[in-house]
Amino acid sequence: MEMDNLIDGRAIAEQIHSETVQRISALKARGIQPGLAFVRVGEDPASRVYVGMKEKMCARLGIHSVTHVFPEKASQQELLQRIDQLNHEARIHGILVQSPVPSHIDSTAIYSAVLPGKDVDGFHPANVGKLLLGDRSGFIPCTPAGVHELLIRTQVQIEGAEVVVLGRGNIVGKPMTALLLQKDRHANATVTLCHSRSRRISAHCLRADIIVAAIGVARFVKSDMVKPGAVVIDVGVNRIEDASAKGGSRLVGDVDFENVRQVAGKITPNPGGVGPMTIAMLMANTVRAAELAAS
Amino acid sequence: MEMDNLIDGRAIAEQIHSETVQRISALKARGIQPGLAFVRVGEDPASRVYVGMKEKMCARLGIHSVTHVFPEKASQQELLQRIDQLNHEARIHGILVQSPVPSHIDSTAIYSAVLPGKDVDGFHPANVGKLLLGDRSGFIPCTPAGVHELLIRTQVQIEGAEVVVLGRGNIVGKPMTALLLQKDRHANATVTLCHSRSRRISAHCLRADIIVAAIGVARFVKSDMVKPGAVVIDVGVNRIEDASAKGGSRLVGDVDFENVRQVAGKITPNPGGVGPMTIAMLMANTVRAAELAAS
Repeated sequence: MEMDNLIDGRAIAEQIHSETVQRISALKARGIQPGLAFVRVGEDPASRVYVGMKEKMCARLGIHSVTHVFPEKASQQELLQRIDQLNHEARIHGILVQSPVPSHIDSTAIYSAVLPGKDVDGFHPANVGKLLLGDRSGFIPCTPAGVHELLIRTQVQIEGAEVVVLGRGNIVGKPMTALLLQKDRHANATVTLCHSRSRRISAHCLRADIIVAAIGVARFVKSDMVKPGAVVIDVGVNRIEDASAKGGSRLVGDVDFENVRQVAGKITPNPGGVGPMTIAMLMANTVRAAELAAS
Repeated sequence: MEMDNLIDGRAIAEQIHSETVQRISALKARGIQPGLAFVRVGEDPASRVYVGMKEKMCARLGIHSVTHVFPEKASQQELLQRIDQLNHEARIHGILVQSPVPSHIDSTAIYSAVLPGKDVDGFHPANVGKLLLGDRSGFIPCTPAGVHELLIRTQVQIEGAEVVVLGRGNIVGKPMTALLLQKDRHANATVTLCHSRSRRISAHCLRADIIVAAIGVARFVKSDMVKPGAVVIDVGVNRIEDASAKGGSRLVGDVDFENVRQVAGKITPNPGGVGPMTIAMLMANTVRAAELAAS
């Protein structure tokens, strides 16, 4: 099979960024600058990296951003108070609490405290409910929204497709399923959600036209689980040991990329696939929050 | 096959009612009577019948109920004002707006106006979101909750089962899917949601251990679509012409019952299957709302 089957997430994210910049210009012409507040608790290295990347992207696109850092031992009440302040701050249109939060914090309470209209991560129950109900007025979590845009912008036929979503996390698997099963343009798929307790995962994958892998197991999807020509989207971020790598470990996805690439009709690299899209959708959600607040 | 494969929804609903009555007694011992308010708009005959059945069940179990009837032409604002009053009424623990509401009313706005803690129908986006997120603090819509109880109380193996849900309505299909895919006891199923745009529905049904039919097409599920021994739950209520019936029509489900019954391991009759369970779960949700308000 020819090796032109890569879905270039970076290039598509850039397309979206350029659209977002235009929307920011239109807002600025009305005297509005979109603002995004980050809340980070503790010094988890990955969280620092993620927030740093998002801050940089805000700066590049012209979104005002502020980051509120709390010590690992911060109390839930302190966080809730800060979120309440941010809910009331007119210059802040979006609030993102970087996960994971320390285990003594009830993450559900934190996500539910963000005003739904500022919940650009789409984790508030009211936004999750709107997504499942097919009510498009809410915010969609950035990673499944990014996967959706990848599929749309690479002309993947979603309507009528057999889709298998691997993994039932609240951040990817469940909202991805909810998004693709809707009676809607670019949806209307027949979705099966597989997870750790599923039997016959291979059989499900083998009949799929589209596989979205978000199961959190390194190289879980093998080439003999993929129907020739199927579209394979790799959301996974798994750290594996590798003596030859700097620091003794490196990141791999949920897909055995080199082998699956030989079979798939289209496939995302990882990195360079879904990751850039997640940030692009966060920026787009923030601008949409500002647009809605101004309308 | 023996014909002892019927799931007796009426008998199981009675079990639940007797549990509910005990919970009501416990509340009354604390000076609390659960209260349920019905809101009905217009004189749709089916809505009158449904509300009437629910009122009677309240009276039988000892739940206080009031019914607010609005004319067909009532404005959305009138309805919202009444819901707001009911949200503040201490004696009312549950509020049910009987669907369908007339087309000039935005049903989404109506369902979203009910306080989530009084939303015993489970239609508020925040409750739908909690259901998908696996947060058990919300209310689950009565029909999927009733189907779930039927499966649990007839010892159907749900964990690891292949489930096919037919129909993606907001009242049954979507919440049913969300319920069964959770990482939870009596869940952990591998769920495929099929709908009007699905291809190969028969093939999906044939591999299912459990089929939940809520697609709204009379006798859609035929015996050659059912794996021998599978459990078949019929949620459908379809009016078909029948010259021999009183009034020239009668109600049938989404399952070709007489034929599928020969193949299925367990099957719900219709009527007498899911219907009584829906009312039982409404009563149970109302009592739970009163318990939570009192806690």
